[in-house]
Amino acid sequence: MNLAERLLNGDKRAAARLITMFENNDQEAIDLLTALYKNTGRAQVIGITGPPGAGKSTLTDKLAKALRKEGKTVGIIAIDPTSPFTGGSILGDRVRMSDLYTDPGIFIRSMGTRGHLGGLSKSTLGAVKVLDIYGCDYIFVETVGVGQSEVDIVKAADTILMVMVPGLGDDIQAIKAGIMEIGDVFAINKADRDGAPKTKVEIEMALDFNHSEWRPPVCEVVALYNKGIDELVEELKKHRAYLEDSRQLIERRTKNSELEILDLTQQRLMKRILGDAKSQEDIHILSKQVANRDLDPYSASRQIINKIMKFSNV
Amino acid sequence: MNLAERLLNGDKRAAARLITMFENNDQEAIDLLTALYKNTGRAQVIGITGPPGAGKSTLTDKLAKALRKEGKTVGIIAIDPTSPFTGGSILGDRVRMSDLYTDPGIFIRSMGTRGHLGGLSKSTLGAVKVLDIYGCDYIFVETVGVGQSEVDIVKAADTILMVMVPGLGDDIQAIKAGIMEIGDVFAINKADRDGAPKTKVEIEMALDFNHSEWRPPVCEVVALYNKGIDELVEELKKHRAYLEDSRQLIERRTKNSELEILDLTQQRLMKRILGDAKSQEDIHILSKQVANRDLDPYSASRQIINKIMKFSNV
Repeated sequence: MNLAERLLNGDKRAAARLITMFENNDQEAIDLLTALYKNTGRAQVIGITGPPGAGKSTLTDKLAKALRKEGKTVGIIAIDPTSPFTGGSILGDRVRMSDLYTDPGIFIRSMGTRGHLGGLSKSTLGAVKVLDIYGCDYIFVETVGVGQSEVDIVKAADTILMVMVPGLGDDIQAIKAGIMEIGDVFAINKADRDGAPKTKVEIEMALDFNHSEWRPPVCEVVALYNKGIDELVEELKKHRAYLEDSRQLIERRTKNSELEILDLTQQRLMKRILGDAKSQEDIHILSKQVANRDLDPYSASRQIINKIMKFSNV
Repeated sequence: MNLAERLLNGDKRAAARLITMFENNDQEAIDLLTALYKNTGRAQVIGITGPPGAGKSTLTDKLAKALRKEGKTVGIIAIDPTSPFTGGSILGDRVRMSDLYTDPGIFIRSMGTRGHLGGLSKSTLGAVKVLDIYGCDYIFVETVGVGQSEVDIVKAADTILMVMVPGLGDDIQAIKAGIMEIGDVFAINKADRDGAPKTKVEIEMALDFNHSEWRPPVCEVVALYNKGIDELVEELKKHRAYLEDSRQLIERRTKNSELEILDLTQQRLMKRILGDAKSQEDIHILSKQVANRDLDPYSASRQIINKIMKFSNV
């Protein structure tokens, strides 16, 4: 069987290999996803985000286990900050959950924030497609909710789960607030802590400013002790049902597709601009002139664009 | 006097107005920076970053005050996470330092992470140029050190100051490690706390893996009580001197110029792609087809590129 057939037959190793190929910008992987794209769209893609220390990994794992009990298959794509000194992922949380790795109904993939030819966002969206074709019912994309690129990744989901936690510092609350508007479902994790009711009130008050048809539910959970997980699973399913009933699902996916298409377009254009040694040398010469103040960056950029437009095929 | 003359004469209001115009993608502002670009390059641009809660704002303000005592002029560009609910910046720290605002030798500008036509990175680099032309000796660009876009902004500096703090959680340490490699000078703020010596040892150990010619110094400071600030200022100056003596300054600025040129090029190309209502409508139609799985995003992106290449002038 070829890779496509193996993937369609639910071969876990084929899925893993295809994701790696796609991360490495392998043309065969892109062709394969192009051909199999029509097989995507079935899974509910859930983006999970929140401030550092909110316990996102633990919560994701508990959600996955709850769905497994119902016989559902689950994919987890965890975006980890990467250490420049070790070259690898340094969030050890995943390791604790080794029982998930051996479950054939769960596919876990960690992605570092570096070393993705063509961008992390493209890699993540590629992995989501692979897991969708592979047959996952639910796909979680989990990332720390700070930074515009990281938020963009989580935005590409059908449902966005914001994980909050009582009693974080002011600076962290600020970051949290900066991405609150994108949450479809809220979970206050570690809700057995003192500040939980206050955090709930604050979130509800903030949500009062939001007048869209869907009022995001705020669930109190203690992921570590498996408390409130089933209720949270229900809310995630309700959101999917709402999206389908209100025709919002196709609207949201249209918006997400637009962002993906534009992102791919941008990368393809930049690849052509930096595509060969000659172009790179030209850009280096312009950069030197700009660094020496013999040329300004705005004119330099115009020169590059005028040049690339002479190619007939990008 | 026109805006250019006023800026060259050190008119603070002209500087503020030009930054706002540039943020709004005003062509007059771009033309003006194009013409005055040769007047930039004199200031030492210092990027300040680190995990949330490290006390970056306080430290920046103390550094600014120390430099003012030497008669130097200082610009501060603070990138603040923005609240979607209030529309404004929600980091109130700045307000405490109101004495800085009234000092004619200090220019402070807060920038939210939203609402920058053409990108925050472009706005920030534009503001740095304006302050450089305006005559600042030192320009601090301060941003929370999480998220790829945020790190990219701070990377555009001559000198990168990483602010650490003892005793942060594991998750935050992970983020910290993810950007440690870019630091030229390290400050452990709140160094009167218990964990400070341990943090220093950890940073030094991590730096042992880094074999470049410049060994980043690690300074212990307590910004709130003004402790260790003068020593830190000295290290920042030493780094500038090192860059100049070793010819690294022009090399680093060449690299930064390259990133800026490519970023401008990318934005200009995307602006053309999304430039008119007709193109936007075309992209919306493609996105709908992709959302419905009638077309894949890779082919959609190719269609857009083939189309734009027919324009002779982007």
